Amino acid sequence: MEIFSHEYFMREALKEAKKAFDTNEIPVGAVVVCKNKIIARAHNQTEVLTDATAHAEMLAVTAAENYLGSKYLNECILYVTLEPCVMCAGALHWVQLERLVFGASDVQRGYSLVSSPLLHPKTEVVKGVKADEAKLLIDEFFKKLRL
Amino acid sequence: MEIFSHEYFMREALKEAKKAFDTNEIPVGAVVVCKNKIIARAHNQTEVLTDATAHAEMLAVTAAENYLGSKYLNECILYVTLEPCVMCAGALHWVQLERLVFGASDVQRGYSLVSSPLLHPKTEVVKGVKADEAKLLIDEFFKKLRL
Repeated sequence: MEIFSHEYFMREALKEAKKAFDTNEIPVGAVVVCKNKIIARAHNQTEVLTDATAHAEMLAVTAAENYLGSKYLNECILYVTLEPCVMCAGALHWVQLERLVFGASDVQRGYSLVSSPLLHPKTEVVKGVKADEAKLLIDEFFKKLRL
Repeated sequence: MEIFSHEYFMREALKEAKKAFDTNEIPVGAVVVCKNKIIARAHNQTEVLTDATAHAEMLAVTAAENYLGSKYLNECILYVTLEPCVMCAGALHWVQLERLVFGASDVQRGYSLVSSPLLHPKTEVVKGVKADEAKLLIDEFFKKLRL
């Protein structure tokens, strides 16, 4: 069913990334899905919160834990438009995320650049979902910054 | 001057760890020091906040950024009773921490178990400050848990 596809949920994460773009934040968005329902949405808010740790993934994870009343997201999927950084991968380890689906790879800051495995061993990874759209948004953002 | 020693500030971090102990949290505490002044204090609050990311370091870093009105802690020292995990090391990278001083090493979850360097290249590291006290508190905690 289309509504339960990775593309569907990634489009929702992209909507979050666009909110970040429109508020002059590096455009990264995330949603957490549990039993095919979106239980948390967030976008990067490092500028508005003056907090370098306020990445979309961190905010979405905390909101999802709050929603579920649980420290574990082991029946949840995180959709995020950009590959998580080391900090966010470490957070996903702690919550024992069931599945991570990300869009564009981050060739400068992505967790997969670290040789050791950072995610929880049970976390499945799907990458490249709507990667072009995610990357285009980020490229546009930095082009706008340089103008 | 004694008041500006690593031991002095680590004692303050240990006071935070004891607060965690007394509220049934894994006893880890942290303080952030800027120009010899404590600008943030925090202890692990993963249980009370139902948030696996609510480590002492994350809470202290966010509070310090808020205090300074800056995303960077490049003139700050973080004192933490236990070696940070991967997530927290990633956060310390983003804030470009000037110096990390930790107590006990974490042989299971410490960031230094990862072969790649996770901290910012400019971050100086001092380890083992009051390590025995920090470790004793954690050992006592897990002994109490098993009773």
